[in-house]
Amino acid sequence: MNTCAILSIGNELLLGHTLDTNAAFLCQQMTTLGWRVCGMATVGDDLPKIIDAITRAAASADVVLMTGGLGPTPDDLTRDGIAGALGVGLSEHADLVEAIQARFTRMKRVMTDSNLRQALLPDGATALKNECGTAPGVRAVLNGTRLFSMPGVPSEMKEMFALRILPEIENVAGNTAMRRMHYCGASESSFSEPIRAAEKEFGAEIGTTVDDMIITVRVRASDPDKQKADAICLAASEQIRQQFLDSWFSDDDATMASTVIDLLKKNGKTLALAESCTGGLIASALIDVPGASDVLIESAVTYSNAAKIRRLGVREETLDKYGAVSKQTAAEMARGVLQTTGADYSLAATGIAGPGGGTEEKPVGTVWLALGTPSGVYCNLRHFLADRRGNRVRAVNTALDLLRRHLSGQPFTGDVEHIG
Amino acid sequence: MNTCAILSIGNELLLGHTLDTNAAFLCQQMTTLGWRVCGMATVGDDLPKIIDAITRAAASADVVLMTGGLGPTPDDLTRDGIAGALGVGLSEHADLVEAIQARFTRMKRVMTDSNLRQALLPDGATALKNECGTAPGVRAVLNGTRLFSMPGVPSEMKEMFALRILPEIENVAGNTAMRRMHYCGASESSFSEPIRAAEKEFGAEIGTTVDDMIITVRVRASDPDKQKADAICLAASEQIRQQFLDSWFSDDDATMASTVIDLLKKNGKTLALAESCTGGLIASALIDVPGASDVLIESAVTYSNAAKIRRLGVREETLDKYGAVSKQTAAEMARGVLQTTGADYSLAATGIAGPGGGTEEKPVGTVWLALGTPSGVYCNLRHFLADRRGNRVRAVNTALDLLRRHLSGQPFTGDVEHIG
Repeated sequence: MNTCAILSIGNELLLGHTLDTNAAFLCQQMTTLGWRVCGMATVGDDLPKIIDAITRAAASADVVLMTGGLGPTPDDLTRDGIAGALGVGLSEHADLVEAIQARFTRMKRVMTDSNLRQALLPDGATALKNECGTAPGVRAVLNGTRLFSMPGVPSEMKEMFALRILPEIENVAGNTAMRRMHYCGASESSFSEPIRAAEKEFGAEIGTTVDDMIITVRVRASDPDKQKADAICLAASEQIRQQFLDSWFSDDDATMASTVIDLLKKNGKTLALAESCTGGLIASALIDVPGASDVLIESAVTYSNAAKIRRLGVREETLDKYGAVSKQTAAEMARGVLQTTGADYSLAATGIAGPGGGTEEKPVGTVWLALGTPSGVYCNLRHFLADRRGNRVRAVNTALDLLRRHLSGQPFTGDVEHIG
Repeated sequence: MNTCAILSIGNELLLGHTLDTNAAFLCQQMTTLGWRVCGMATVGDDLPKIIDAITRAAASADVVLMTGGLGPTPDDLTRDGIAGALGVGLSEHADLVEAIQARFTRMKRVMTDSNLRQALLPDGATALKNECGTAPGVRAVLNGTRLFSMPGVPSEMKEMFALRILPEIENVAGNTAMRRMHYCGASESSFSEPIRAAEKEFGAEIGTTVDDMIITVRVRASDPDKQKADAICLAASEQIRQQFLDSWFSDDDATMASTVIDLLKKNGKTLALAESCTGGLIASALIDVPGASDVLIESAVTYSNAAKIRRLGVREETLDKYGAVSKQTAAEMARGVLQTTGADYSLAATGIAGPGGGTEEKPVGTVWLALGTPSGVYCNLRHFLADRRGNRVRAVNTALDLLRRHLSGQPFTGDVEHIG
């Protein structure tokens, strides 16, 4: 099996303030492509250590993926590190100077001399074009091991990996088939038995992860014959999916938000949102999907009671009698935003995200969700047990799942009350 | 300075589905205690690789902190790895058997034979008591380097680090002072010269990172005398900050959102938002900060033209004549949301996040921002060059920076036009 080593470069990682999501992303990608990641290492902005780490990584793997250390400041030493490992010098490339200059012109900003560092390449290396930043990546070969160096900024790294590196490496991977299936509504432990059975029956490798109410089941099958690997992967994954049909919503890179947008488009329907505790997160999850504007009319982020009354027509008596976090308020929010926007569907969320604001009756994590439809409002009470951020993201996923189930004719889970 | 290496063990980390938060936690802790983390490595459940990694880590540092691989299953190989690196065997310890047995009795569960693996220790090593799990940790010494092995479950790891390891290491740490300063509005490359000068003058260690328009400058100073380390850190960081006073907005864990919320609270002012391309992200960044409800009245996420007209009173003629992404529309959005909410300040964002929707005149990444104030509206045109997500996050940070600069009496950067 082809092996890959991952090297992350930057003092910020060793100080612990920056979580290394790049390395995890690259592990996932390479594993999916059938590569075995044999090790990861992190070093600081220290030239001898970088040279040593590159040399060691290259000795242990067929491909080395590096992130970080390509910026314009003196502590960005990856270019020097690659040159050191290769035993060569660095030279400025006129085409890279031009590309960096052009980028600054487009941004209507002035390029400084230190940006010229980014036009340097180790001799014998080639540049990887950066579509969304100034720093080009570096491609080199050390004793037969291919080295790829990418920027540390996650968006730039992902783009460069997808556009420049993936096309060069995907074909050498072994014959592995992989499917990631995403579920919402079932419990993680309920997958244990079905997974064990499918692993035994099909010889596939199956794992699960949970992330804010979304369960991802990864099914992986390997065989010398690619078609056979595909068939094993499909049979094993389908056997599991059939047991959780209502909770399954998408595969691979399709998200809950993209699934809901696709369903709305397919049905020719529109959506409006009334967000309190989620505070714009439902809207931003949907708007992350290109083309969301076709179906999302508006979100009213009404954090205060005054805004709930003014924007959504929630009645003051309702807020007084039942509180902002209540079935009645959620329902009036969902109904109000339907009426003022003319959307076909609405989602409303009101809850206590924490850390403060909880009471014995309504502890932190209590969230009322409401789904507004042409045939009335559906209300759903949830109790999440995460931190402020986690409670909000769980509310987003659970709210979108209500609409997904309604649009795809699947039953709701948990306590859902229909109000005419 | 005392050095520390961190070693994470487990196949799940190499598959990329589990983010290694343990390593980041330990980096932060050790850095705060004045240690220098000289490197991190991750290996899978593979005995020769674990032995090699322990040997290398021990050769490079005074202390090695390990997490993972202490469970009861056959793929948990850290105990064997330490024994291999030390060149000794493993022996079962009666007191550990008893402690594990007692834990199972308390949980009213039956101990299996595989749990007895957790009572093994490399010869010459001692156990670290685990208060919240069955796996004891391991303490050993290899050629003068102290090795500490902890469970991979984050809660068990943190407890063991705090109770068993911290008391043994905190007193030997050097005296380090550290400051992270956050800037928005200056270019990263403009920091190069001032950083080089401050490093030279004060002997401090200084690095930068950039994340969606936010530049973080980390200054670190070490000295046998703690007060002297503090003084060096302060002098070096202030010398840099004085050159970018308008762009500096906070230190350490304070974010752009928390800075803006603090400024609004201090001034007793309120804010409303009108978000198009940012689609709820400005609201959710602010609402991430506990207590945001005191100052954020509402966000109108008006993605469609119809919503801009209905909710914000943007004129149809403005949209027809200038388009949704224009100075005029941004200004009417900012003014409209001020009027309907009665807030003191407003921020509006309208732009082309991509990947589609760009034209020659208004390419992807074109964003108009507007700041509404009691003394008129300020409009700012930006050209971002990231992907959809990056363009939106950059618009969020840049918009909040407009308000921050206004509230703290700092000048704007870039093209900002004041409309009465």
